[in-house]
Amino acid sequence: MSFNTFGHMFRVTTWGESHGPALGATVDGCPPGVPLTEADIQPWLDKRKPGQNKFTTQRQEADHVRILSGVYEGRTTGTPIQLMIENTDQRSKDYGDIAQKFRPGHADISYHQKYGIRDPRGGGRSSARETAARVAAGGVARAALAQLVPGLSVTGYMVQMGPHKIDRARFDWDQIGENPFWVPDAVAANDWAVYLDDLRKAHNSVGAVIEVTARGMVAGLGAPIYAKLDTDLAAAMMSINAVKGVEIGEGMAAANLTGVENADEIRMGAQGPEFLSNHAGGILGGISTGQDVMVRFSVKPTSSILTPRQTVTVAGEEVDLITKGRHDPCVGIRAVPVGEAMMACVLLDHFLMDRGQTGGLRGVIG
Amino acid sequence: MSFNTFGHMFRVTTWGESHGPALGATVDGCPPGVPLTEADIQPWLDKRKPGQNKFTTQRQEADHVRILSGVYEGRTTGTPIQLMIENTDQRSKDYGDIAQKFRPGHADISYHQKYGIRDPRGGGRSSARETAARVAAGGVARAALAQLVPGLSVTGYMVQMGPHKIDRARFDWDQIGENPFWVPDAVAANDWAVYLDDLRKAHNSVGAVIEVTARGMVAGLGAPIYAKLDTDLAAAMMSINAVKGVEIGEGMAAANLTGVENADEIRMGAQGPEFLSNHAGGILGGISTGQDVMVRFSVKPTSSILTPRQTVTVAGEEVDLITKGRHDPCVGIRAVPVGEAMMACVLLDHFLMDRGQTGGLRGVIG
Amino acid sequence: MSFNTFGHMFRVTTWGESHGPALGATVDGCPPGVPLTEADIQPWLDKRKPGQNKFTTQRQEADHVRILSGVYEGRTTGTPIQLMIENTDQRSKDYGDIAQKFRPGHADISYHQKYGIRDPRGGGRSSARETAARVAAGGVARAALAQLVPGLSVTGYMVQMGPHKIDRARFDWDQIGENPFWVPDAVAANDWAVYLDDLRKAHNSVGAVIEVTARGMVAGLGAPIYAKLDTDLAAAMMSINAVKGVEIGEGMAAANLTGVENADEIRMGAQGPEFLSNHAGGILGGISTGQDVMVRFSVKPTSSILTPRQTVTVAGEEVDLITKGRHDPCVGIRAVPVGEAMMACVLLDHFLMDRGQTGGLRGVIG
Amino acid sequence: MSFNTFGHMFRVTTWGESHGPALGATVDGCPPGVPLTEADIQPWLDKRKPGQNKFTTQRQEADHVRILSGVYEGRTTGTPIQLMIENTDQRSKDYGDIAQKFRPGHADISYHQKYGIRDPRGGGRSSARETAARVAAGGVARAALAQLVPGLSVTGYMVQMGPHKIDRARFDWDQIGENPFWVPDAVAANDWAVYLDDLRKAHNSVGAVIEVTARGMVAGLGAPIYAKLDTDLAAAMMSINAVKGVEIGEGMAAANLTGVENADEIRMGAQGPEFLSNHAGGILGGISTGQDVMVRFSVKPTSSILTPRQTVTVAGEEVDLITKGRHDPCVGIRAVPVGEAMMACVLLDHFLMDRGQTGGLRGVIG
Repeated sequence: MSFNTFGHMFRVTTWGESHGPALGATVDGCPPGVPLTEADIQPWLDKRKPGQNKFTTQRQEADHVRILSGVYEGRTTGTPIQLMIENTDQRSKDYGDIAQKFRPGHADISYHQKYGIRDPRGGGRSSARETAARVAAGGVARAALAQLVPGLSVTGYMVQMGPHKIDRARFDWDQIGENPFWVPDAVAANDWAVYLDDLRKAHNSVGAVIEVTARGMVAGLGAPIYAKLDTDLAAAMMSINAVKGVEIGEGMAAANLTGVENADEIRMGAQGPEFLSNHAGGILGGISTGQDVMVRFSVKPTSSILTPRQTVTVAGEEVDLITKGRHDPCVGIRAVPVGEAMMACVLLDHFLMDRGQTGGLRGVIG
Repeated sequence: MSFNTFGHMFRVTTWGESHGPALGATVDGCPPGVPLTEADIQPWLDKRKPGQNKFTTQRQEADHVRILSGVYEGRTTGTPIQLMIENTDQRSKDYGDIAQKFRPGHADISYHQKYGIRDPRGGGRSSARETAARVAAGGVARAALAQLVPGLSVTGYMVQMGPHKIDRARFDWDQIGENPFWVPDAVAANDWAVYLDDLRKAHNSVGAVIEVTARGMVAGLGAPIYAKLDTDLAAAMMSINAVKGVEIGEGMAAANLTGVENADEIRMGAQGPEFLSNHAGGILGGISTGQDVMVRFSVKPTSSILTPRQTVTVAGEEVDLITKGRHDPCVGIRAVPVGEAMMACVLLDHFLMDRGQTGGLRGVIG
Repeated sequence: MSFNTFGHMFRVTTWGESHGPALGATVDGCPPGVPLTEADIQPWLDKRKPGQNKFTTQRQEADHVRILSGVYEGRTTGTPIQLMIENTDQRSKDYGDIAQKFRPGHADISYHQKYGIRDPRGGGRSSARETAARVAAGGVARAALAQLVPGLSVTGYMVQMGPHKIDRARFDWDQIGENPFWVPDAVAANDWAVYLDDLRKAHNSVGAVIEVTARGMVAGLGAPIYAKLDTDLAAAMMSINAVKGVEIGEGMAAANLTGVENADEIRMGAQGPEFLSNHAGGILGGISTGQDVMVRFSVKPTSSILTPRQTVTVAGEEVDLITKGRHDPCVGIRAVPVGEAMMACVLLDHFLMDRGQTGGLRGVIG
Repeated sequence: MSFNTFGHMFRVTTWGESHGPALGATVDGCPPGVPLTEADIQPWLDKRKPGQNKFTTQRQEADHVRILSGVYEGRTTGTPIQLMIENTDQRSKDYGDIAQKFRPGHADISYHQKYGIRDPRGGGRSSARETAARVAAGGVARAALAQLVPGLSVTGYMVQMGPHKIDRARFDWDQIGENPFWVPDAVAANDWAVYLDDLRKAHNSVGAVIEVTARGMVAGLGAPIYAKLDTDLAAAMMSINAVKGVEIGEGMAAANLTGVENADEIRMGAQGPEFLSNHAGGILGGISTGQDVMVRFSVKPTSSILTPRQTVTVAGEEVDLITKGRHDPCVGIRAVPVGEAMMACVLLDHFLMDRGQTGGLRGVIG
């Protein structure tokens, strides 16, 4: 069972509600001896932190992570790592209205139906605030990967906002950190700023597509048939709030291709086999090939908008609802570090599983 | 760990290779007292069976399922149900060549890299033949659902082949069983037959998109945060051979929508709350709302084609490879019953989990 | 994988070290709507709390539990419950010596061998202080059971200390809370006090046997073959620090019996079938029968004693070690509430699993 | 969830009933490249096989194992290994009576209560015949261990039958294979033969204690806190039919010891640290120390006896029941290879888990 846990060997259990005293992640199965301090995790949380510019919610959360266990004198001990983030800015009065009214597009109604009780403050458990715990866990995964797979990097970025896609010809890794959208296309960054500002002023919001790429991969990660690397990545991304689609490599567009086009042909390179293309997104039969692993996911538009929408109350009364509060016009922006964190966790998990089963042997070619 | 197992309470472990003596599924956690015979499962396997028309592989497999355990006098006993399918038509000489040459787009190279050994006969474990075991397990899930959620139906169908999408205005549930593509659009069925025949003759293949819809749903299924209903559906579909993308409701297109457009507004109907649209695909916050659950997945074009593609051998020699044998020009066709089976398994699993945790209580509205 | 998690549906993940800032339990899968406050859990922790009399360690830990999530307005919401206990009295100078010297009978050496690193302060993760988290989780389980299985009670008590066993003829449930040993035999309580005081003064310690009985059971709990009720109880008890043996019903003494003696014969009573004896300890084939469930476990003598024992250092030097600090002469005393907590967790877990798979149906007799 | 699965990385799912067409084990997570044929597994099954002498049931089962998957050209491929044993001698007429009458000491009544349905033929799923599947899986584990931990041996033997214990002073490893009781004491073997023959003629049966020892252990196996090596061994043994108690090292007798007596003191030997005694049974804090791992478990007397016992029928009628059929007077005998198999599976599982998490690093001493 895995109500609130993901991962096989590197297992992350998150807990906490948006407006409770704290939230966090219990990280189990981390290898011992990994250098780790709060300062290694904090930068990833800062990347997700709200209130950094006008395109993200103005909620001010310090999102300061504390390591409560599992680390001794700056190194992991192999025991559970408890990562706690206290909730400091809760302003619960902003949310009083929604205890009785179900916000369209939110989990209010489904939590009520399932559990018969819900914590309405800020969305409770279904708040995207839960993703802070994922990002903290991802920081631990990154620290371990830095030691175990030295050349590996995991980078997320937006490739689409509303109908506007990036121009792949302008793709520039160095641009990603230079704009509030984590977009690798400087022209798009400028255009999107105008577009999103207009939407925000119109009391509207918009969806997005995020891509996460792992470079410097090793071959052999992934446990077919039901813990395939792509399966676990799909689950990891789909579990993020507001995600409605996940793609590996060509993704949904694979339907458009012919077999002749789609074949990633193989030649021998200096270091071994090399693929001439990467339609597969770095995964064949659920196992990494050593190519870049490429995942994309869509994020639906923020459901909390200032435009009135029709809904009902717990008592069954029909009402119109405006969702006040401080909300992101495009939650996709802050989903970027979350997607990165999930990828990092999945890769570490599969590294450990593979090492367990195979001992890290690799079949030779050539 | 779940190398070859999926599900939480209704757990399916598949086993077997394409050309070994048999393959099957060990189904654990089925409720007791469910009427079940081999005749209840066989029709679903027949639907997936190869060799039924010129659009699917001419391999002749009887795909006859045997129930070896877990059923007594026509009812499940609550103990593991072993479903075995013997492999009868193996013609392994067709595949002799591929023991040394890695077929592009196949898992040959990644299995070799990971395990240092692989069963090359027909793709071994990575063959889509494994999906027969899923379909058999899905038959068990359907039998249990028939008892537990009487009005529920799970139906799969193709909505895109190559660049050709169905016309939703012509959508007709009754058409699905009337053509070899399980397509709910009679015009598309005719057009696709011509299109695919041409591709096949050109020694090529093509991808597809399959949609699976569950009608007659109950609210409250799904275990947030990491066993959300959509998370588990995404994992289930992505684990199917050749799948590269999964969508719930609007899917990737959710990125294009604004918050105003995307809101599924709610009114009170005769039976309780009703949604005015279903952009969400029947799931909010990972929990079913009672609306139809809608999942789509893309299937890449068959990698085994008669057009030569560049590859390398185990010895590192560069060669061109034509994949002979009897292959489907569009594996998406036979993925339809597989997608249905996975949906059925996930829904039953979540029904049992929900019943375990909540006892099936439902929060009242109105 | 379950490095630090136990349970199937009601899953408890404990975290934290003896001398870190805090420790706790992440409780997942609790049913929603269960009345729960910190005041419901605290009494069980108080029962385990050190420093209550001269027979338990004089370490003064408030062991005050805080609920950080999963409860709203005094009821569980079905989301993870984080239970945190801050460590307030750590006196780590007491333990400085053991960073280099492996205490015989402790996990110092095995943790060092496995992980290459360990937190030596107070035994780190291997300290029995971890059991406070279990007791807190057990408090949650008890609250849920009170609602789901109203007549159920779970009671632990000592039945042996060193060579001294209780006299079953004097067994008195009401005595259990009246003495520092939780022993149901007033005569034994007096005798043991003298015996243990002498041992303590002799810088020695002693083992014990604890029995935990569940009365008011329901039939049908237990999931054969590998999640049998007795299997899970055995694992739960053996996972407690210092436990070396676990028995169900007759336990090891079952070896001495003949089949004629061991048969628990059945007659019809007013409420259905009744057993004339309970050699089985309330479990047949891994499933509860409705009789009292009886588990016993042995606890080895405290390894931390003031008598010098031979050992080696990390550097490989041979030394004699006296373990100073404040230690219980018989850790079995404080294992009583821990055993109760584990039983409560296992019973709730199995109640939920059974409800999930069978819906709580019960086969009728008569 | 683990209804019918045990293990973390090396996962065994057993299936099948006593009198169905077949039973078996689905073994997942086995390392690739392990030499394995049916002939490697068969000898362990032969050791458990009934009908070998007058002290075991005269049921004639060939117990011939077939490997249906996961092995290619004599080596494991890392994919699931299906081990099937067909049931050939079923004589179900022997058992007709017990469809209505609950045999005291059997799971008939508890299965009926839980599931509302049961397969009564030979005890169905609750028959000890299920243990054949464990023994087959244990054969796979042994083959993998032979490669991964070359010096390791796992040996089971009886140490008590009824009230008669072996004399440890006469303990002789070479005696174990020389008598029908797997007892390491030649005198006991002779005495027990007389004792058991008398019991059998008296239509009675008796319990036993089996000990399983792993020699040539490595340090570092075991995943505290909830997958401790002793925890998993306790669960593994308690899950075997008829087992009522499990002990590690001193076991229940640890209660009798003082801390001074119980300390396994440590000195430096030629190869590193050496323990001067092994009260701990080779496990400290849930982790192996490198000493011999010693587990004991009790097996209750066979419940199926020819002496009439009181019981009730499904209809609630009170009757006396004689259990005819061919039953072992001491099922403990055939539990020996089962205990060995469980130990082998647990040790391999923990070897893989440890390799996954730590990479097999070992902390140095000296």
